[in-house]
Amino acid sequence: MSVNSFGRMFRFTSWGESHGPALGAVVDGCPPGLALAEADIQPWLDRRRPGQSRFTTQRQEPDAVRILSGVYEGRTTGTPISLMIDNVDQRSRDYAEVARAYRPGHADYAYDAKYGLRDPRGGGRSSARETAARVAAGAVARLVIPEVRIRAWVSELGGDAATAFDDAEIDANPFFCPDAAAAARWEAMVDAARKAGSSLGAVVTCEAVGVPAGWGAPLYAKLDAELAGAMMSINAVKGVEIGDGFAAARLSGESNADAMRPGPDGQPVFASNHAGGIAGGIATGQPVRLRVAFKPTSSILTPVDTVTPAGDATQIATRGRHDPCVGIRGVPVVEAMMALVLADQKLLHRAQTGR
Amino acid sequence: MSVNSFGRMFRFTSWGESHGPALGAVVDGCPPGLALAEADIQPWLDRRRPGQSRFTTQRQEPDAVRILSGVYEGRTTGTPISLMIDNVDQRSRDYAEVARAYRPGHADYAYDAKYGLRDPRGGGRSSARETAARVAAGAVARLVIPEVRIRAWVSELGGDAATAFDDAEIDANPFFCPDAAAAARWEAMVDAARKAGSSLGAVVTCEAVGVPAGWGAPLYAKLDAELAGAMMSINAVKGVEIGDGFAAARLSGESNADAMRPGPDGQPVFASNHAGGIAGGIATGQPVRLRVAFKPTSSILTPVDTVTPAGDATQIATRGRHDPCVGIRGVPVVEAMMALVLADQKLLHRAQTGR
Amino acid sequence: MSVNSFGRMFRFTSWGESHGPALGAVVDGCPPGLALAEADIQPWLDRRRPGQSRFTTQRQEPDAVRILSGVYEGRTTGTPISLMIDNVDQRSRDYAEVARAYRPGHADYAYDAKYGLRDPRGGGRSSARETAARVAAGAVARLVIPEVRIRAWVSELGGDAATAFDDAEIDANPFFCPDAAAAARWEAMVDAARKAGSSLGAVVTCEAVGVPAGWGAPLYAKLDAELAGAMMSINAVKGVEIGDGFAAARLSGESNADAMRPGPDGQPVFASNHAGGIAGGIATGQPVRLRVAFKPTSSILTPVDTVTPAGDATQIATRGRHDPCVGIRGVPVVEAMMALVLADQKLLHRAQTGR
Amino acid sequence: MSVNSFGRMFRFTSWGESHGPALGAVVDGCPPGLALAEADIQPWLDRRRPGQSRFTTQRQEPDAVRILSGVYEGRTTGTPISLMIDNVDQRSRDYAEVARAYRPGHADYAYDAKYGLRDPRGGGRSSARETAARVAAGAVARLVIPEVRIRAWVSELGGDAATAFDDAEIDANPFFCPDAAAAARWEAMVDAARKAGSSLGAVVTCEAVGVPAGWGAPLYAKLDAELAGAMMSINAVKGVEIGDGFAAARLSGESNADAMRPGPDGQPVFASNHAGGIAGGIATGQPVRLRVAFKPTSSILTPVDTVTPAGDATQIATRGRHDPCVGIRGVPVVEAMMALVLADQKLLHRAQTGR
Repeated sequence: MSVNSFGRMFRFTSWGESHGPALGAVVDGCPPGLALAEADIQPWLDRRRPGQSRFTTQRQEPDAVRILSGVYEGRTTGTPISLMIDNVDQRSRDYAEVARAYRPGHADYAYDAKYGLRDPRGGGRSSARETAARVAAGAVARLVIPEVRIRAWVSELGGDAATAFDDAEIDANPFFCPDAAAAARWEAMVDAARKAGSSLGAVVTCEAVGVPAGWGAPLYAKLDAELAGAMMSINAVKGVEIGDGFAAARLSGESNADAMRPGPDGQPVFASNHAGGIAGGIATGQPVRLRVAFKPTSSILTPVDTVTPAGDATQIATRGRHDPCVGIRGVPVVEAMMALVLADQKLLHRAQTGR
Repeated sequence: MSVNSFGRMFRFTSWGESHGPALGAVVDGCPPGLALAEADIQPWLDRRRPGQSRFTTQRQEPDAVRILSGVYEGRTTGTPISLMIDNVDQRSRDYAEVARAYRPGHADYAYDAKYGLRDPRGGGRSSARETAARVAAGAVARLVIPEVRIRAWVSELGGDAATAFDDAEIDANPFFCPDAAAAARWEAMVDAARKAGSSLGAVVTCEAVGVPAGWGAPLYAKLDAELAGAMMSINAVKGVEIGDGFAAARLSGESNADAMRPGPDGQPVFASNHAGGIAGGIATGQPVRLRVAFKPTSSILTPVDTVTPAGDATQIATRGRHDPCVGIRGVPVVEAMMALVLADQKLLHRAQTGR
Repeated sequence: MSVNSFGRMFRFTSWGESHGPALGAVVDGCPPGLALAEADIQPWLDRRRPGQSRFTTQRQEPDAVRILSGVYEGRTTGTPISLMIDNVDQRSRDYAEVARAYRPGHADYAYDAKYGLRDPRGGGRSSARETAARVAAGAVARLVIPEVRIRAWVSELGGDAATAFDDAEIDANPFFCPDAAAAARWEAMVDAARKAGSSLGAVVTCEAVGVPAGWGAPLYAKLDAELAGAMMSINAVKGVEIGDGFAAARLSGESNADAMRPGPDGQPVFASNHAGGIAGGIATGQPVRLRVAFKPTSSILTPVDTVTPAGDATQIATRGRHDPCVGIRGVPVVEAMMALVLADQKLLHRAQTGR
Repeated sequence: MSVNSFGRMFRFTSWGESHGPALGAVVDGCPPGLALAEADIQPWLDRRRPGQSRFTTQRQEPDAVRILSGVYEGRTTGTPISLMIDNVDQRSRDYAEVARAYRPGHADYAYDAKYGLRDPRGGGRSSARETAARVAAGAVARLVIPEVRIRAWVSELGGDAATAFDDAEIDANPFFCPDAAAAARWEAMVDAARKAGSSLGAVVTCEAVGVPAGWGAPLYAKLDAELAGAMMSINAVKGVEIGDGFAAARLSGESNADAMRPGPDGQPVFASNHAGGIAGGIATGQPVRLRVAFKPTSSILTPVDTVTPAGDATQIATRGRHDPCVGIRGVPVVEAMMALVLADQKLLHRAQTGR
C-alpha cells in the first residue's frame, strides 16, 4: 500500500529517516517539458531549513537537494523525478534517551505498538525532518501550477494572534508573521518558553490565489477533503479549517452566504469568502483559504511522566535540538502541501474535462 | 480516477443523484464469513432518515436498503456487496428555481464551471442525499470492527454548546444532543431559525472506543489524516479537529503532554487525551476523538443575491424541503465515516503486520 | 482494495453473481457532456447475450441494461454512471451438483480455499456472466474514444485457424469468424463436441485502429501491460500475445524490425507491424493488435475425477446450460476490455501532457 | 498517477535512466521485523549484472546496491525501503546516433510522440537498465514469501527448445538453460547472430512452488492477470502464457481438465497442471507456472530503414553495447516480477481474510 505516497495524478513517494544517510522523494506524473533545476527547489528548502535563527532547532543541515532522474538538458521528461537530500548533522548520541522511554506526544509508543520495533534516532521516520521531502516535491508542484500564487504565514502563536497583515513582513522576521508588532511579542514569548524548557503551538493560515473555478472533484477527492487530509498528515497538526471553519458553525445561513454579482469577464464576483473558495468540493475561483493548528512541540526539557518499553514508570526530558514552536517551520510545509494538492487536482481536472 | 470511492482496503464506491431513480454503494474488500442482512444496515439508515421530526427536511424517504450481491445464505462471501436504495419522494418541480440561478453556498456554480452542465434536481450529485450510501456502507464497516464502539453527538448548535453529557440522552431527542437542557434550548432556536427563513450550524463530536494501539499508517495514510479527509468530504463540513484541535495550539508543551503510567495489562495508561488517541498518525489505544464543524444550511428562504448561468444578476430564495440545521443529520454520517476509516485501517494494519 | 475495479482514470467497479437478483457496473471518471442512453449500450450487450444460437448456452437472459445515475437529459454529467442488468433466468436447481463437488477447471476449490465459503449457484461471482458488466462499461468507454475503431474475431477454434479475412463475415455467422469456410467447419466441430459431452478452445484476435501515437504510459502502466492484465482477467483466458507474440521470439532482430519511412503527414509510415502497434509501452500510431487464448469450457458432460468439500473422491459431470466454446462469446468481452484500456490511457495521457 | 509504481500492498516505485547518475526503487508496505541487508539483495543483482559473459552486453556495471532507509539494526522497520544503484559505466558518446534517428523496435519515436522530448542516452527511461531496480525490489519481496521457491530459466532460444531439465544446470551455463546440450547449441547460435550483426529472441519459463491455495483475488486483481501485466511490463516481452497457454486453446475440455483426488493432508492432489496453478484467478496450491516471450534485441548492427525526428528518411545501425539476446538476462527479472506479485498477493490475502 502506498501509505508513503501522496497525490493521485501528480504523485510523490517520500522515504528516509531523521538519522539515516539521506531522505528523498520520487515525483511521478509530472508533465514533460517544464524547466527544472536544483535552483528551482533549493530556495524553498532554504526557507524550511533548520538552524537559521534561535527560534528553530540548532541542527545544522544544508539540505542541498540533488535531482537524480527525470530531467534531461534542463527539462522534465515526464518520467519519475528522484530528489535526494543527504543528512549531514546527525547526532545520534542525543537519542539514547529516546530508546529508553516513550516520549509523550511523540509516535514512539505508537510505532512500537504497530511494528514491534522502531528506529529511535531522532524519531526515525516520524521525525519532522521528512517534511524536507515534501517541500522539495512541492517546489516541483509549483511549476505545474504557474497560474496560482500560494502564501502561508503564522497567524497566531501561543494563543496570541497577528492582527495586521503586511505581505512584505512575512519573510522579514523569523516567525513568518505578517504583523511586525506581533512578531516582536512572539520573540519574547518563544525565548521565554525555551528558557522554561517549554514550547508553544501556532496557527498557520494559507491562501492560494488564482485557482480556476472547476478544479476539485466530488465526492471523495473534494478539494477541501484533499487539503484537510494533506494538512493533517503534517507532523504536529491537530486541526484544519476551510474558510471560516468552526466559526461558520456559529453563523446564520444568510450571514454565511457568499452572495454573487455579475463580474466583468462573465465570471461571478463574490461579496465575501466564508467558504474559503470551495463549494461542493470544487473551487469557485475565489482564493482558497485554510487554517492549520499546530500543537506545541512535544520535545521539551520539562520532565514528563512516561513508561519504558518494558512497561516501567519513569520520566523523560527531551534534550536534543528542537524547535520551541514547530508551527513556525510548518509554514513552508503547509505551502508545499497546498501546491501538491492543487497540482494534483489540475491534472485530474484536465484528465476528465480535457481543459 | 476513483473520486467516488473511499478507502484503501475496505473500499466503497457510491453512485446516485438526489432525484434519480436510486442511489447506492458497492463495498469491496469486505472480509468473508460475516453475518450480514438488510436488518444490519436498516437501523443506521433509519437514524439518518429525513422526515422524522420537524427539525429535519420533510422529504419522506423510506430509505429501504437492498443487498444485491456479495452475500450468500446470510454470510458475506468476500465479493463486492452492492447496496441500493430507491428514491421515492422526488418532487423535482421544487427545483426549477435551482436551474434558474446559482444558489450561494451550494455547488451549483462550481459544478457548471467544472463540467459545463449539471443535474439541478435537488442538487443532483452534490445533494446530502448521497450520505445515505455512506451510512449503508458504514453499517457494513461496523461489522468488520466489532472491537470498536463508535458514538457521535451534536455538541454545539448555533453557537450554543451542550455542557452535560448523558449517553442515554443522545437518541432521546431529535438533536442527538447528550444534554437534555441544551436540547430544549435548541428546539426553540431551530424553530425560530426556520420561521425566520434562516438556518443554523452545528459542531458534531465523535468518539471511537476500543481502537487498538497500532492501527493507522504513517505517513500519508495517517489515521488522523484519513479521518480529516473523510469528515471534510461530508456535505457542509468546514472544519475538523483531532483531540484538542485548535485549542492545542494555545497550550504549552507540558500542558499538552499526555503523560503515561504503567497499566495493569502491560499497556500504558494515559493521564489525559489531548491528542485524541492518535500519535504520529497511529492509534495509541486511547479513545479516538474528533470534532467536526457543519456550516448552516445554505438552502434558506431569505433571498440572497446571485447570478444566473447566463451571468445576469438576480436573487434566489430556496424553497424546497430542507434541514434547518444539516449538522443534526450529520451525526450518523460522521459515525459512518469513522467506521469506514477504522475498518479500512484495521485491514491495512493486518496486511502489513499479520496481526 | 478495489480488486473488483478496473482502470486508473476511466474506472469501473463491477458487482454481482450469476444467480443473484442483478449485476452491474459503476463507471467513474467519464468525461461530462457525452450523449449517452441505454440504446448506446444495449447493442453491445446483445452481441454477447446468451441463447442466440445453439453454439452458446441456452440460458435466456434479456440482459436489458438500465442507467441509474450519471446522465441528465441524455448527457453524461461527469458523476458516476451506475449500470444495472437484472438476472432473469436463474435455474439454481441445476447447481446442487456444484455444491456437492469441486468442478475441475473452475474456481470452486480455489474460492473455498480463499474465503472458506462460496456461492455455488452458477459459479457465483466467478461466472462468466459477470462479463456482461464489462461489456456495458465498455460501451461507455467506446464513447470516450471516437477516434478508435475496435474489432475482434475468432481466429482459431479447436485448433483450426481461419485463413481468409472478410470483415463483413464476422457478424454474419454465430462464431464471429471472418472466414465463411472456417465458420462452416467450426459448426460441425462445435456440434460434435457438444454431442460428445466435450468442449473446445479458441483464439480471439483484436485490433484497434486509430490509436494516436503517444497513448500509453511507461513503466508499470504500459499499454501492452495493461492490455495483458485486462485480457487475462477474462474468464477462461490463458494466454495473451501483443503483435507477433511468441512468434517474435523465433525471429531474428532484422526480421522483427518494423522499419519506418517518412509519411505524408509528418508521421512515419511503418513497413510492418510485428510490434502490434506498441513500443516501450506506448502506442506508435499503428493498429494495436493482440491475440487471446481461451481454454475449452470446463463445464462438460464427460465425468471427471474430483473431490468433495469434505475431501472425498467422486466424479462430476456438469449438466446445467453451458457454452461449448466460451471463446466465441469472448469476442465482445475482448473488445470491451480493449475499449476500457484505451479510454483509460487516453485520459491518463491528457492528464500528463495536456493533449 | 503512479505509473512507475507496481503492486497494491507490497508496492515499489522505480526511478532512473540508463545514463543518469543512479537508479533506484522505493519499496513501501514491507512487513516490519524482517532481517534485511545489502547482502540479501546483491546476489540477485549479480545474476542480472551485465558484462559477465560474451553473450550479454559488455557494459561494466558493478550494480552495487545501497539501502538508504527502512532498516534499523538489520531489521525492516515497516517504513519505506529506499534502494539505490549508482550508474558507473555510461558511455553517452555511443548514443549520438540514437538522438539522430529513431531506432525501430525501440521506444524512441513513441516517447517523442508522447512527451515531445526524450533522453536519448542509452534509451533513457526505456532502457532495460531499469530492470535492476525490479530485481532489487524483488529480492526484498522474496523475504516476504519464504514459503515459496521461484525458479526461471530459458526454455527456448532462437526457436530452439531445451528438451532436458536439470535444475543444477540452470546456473551452470551463461544461458540459464536447464539442458546442457541445448546450452551448447545456443552458444553457437548466439555467437553467429552477434557476428552477423543480428539478434535472437527467447522464451523464459518460470515456476513458483509452494504458493498456498487461496492467494489471488477476483476479479481485476486475479493472480494470472497480475502476473500477465507484470511480465508484459518487462522490456522486450511480447507474450505471456499461464499453464498451457495457447496450447490449451487446442485441447478438448476433458483433456484440459486437471482432475482431483483426495490428498494426504486434506488438500486435493491434482492429476495434471494444465491450468498453471491458478483457477478463477486464485492459486490452487499447485506450482504457479508461466511462459514469457522475449522478442530479439532491437539494437542490431544490421542497418534498418528509419526516419529522423525531423521526418527525413535515413538508416540506423545501433552500435553501442548490447545483449545479442535480451531474453537471457530476462530470467532474473521474470523471477523478480513473480516474487513481487506473490508478495503483494500474500499481503492482500491476509488483509481480507486475516490468514
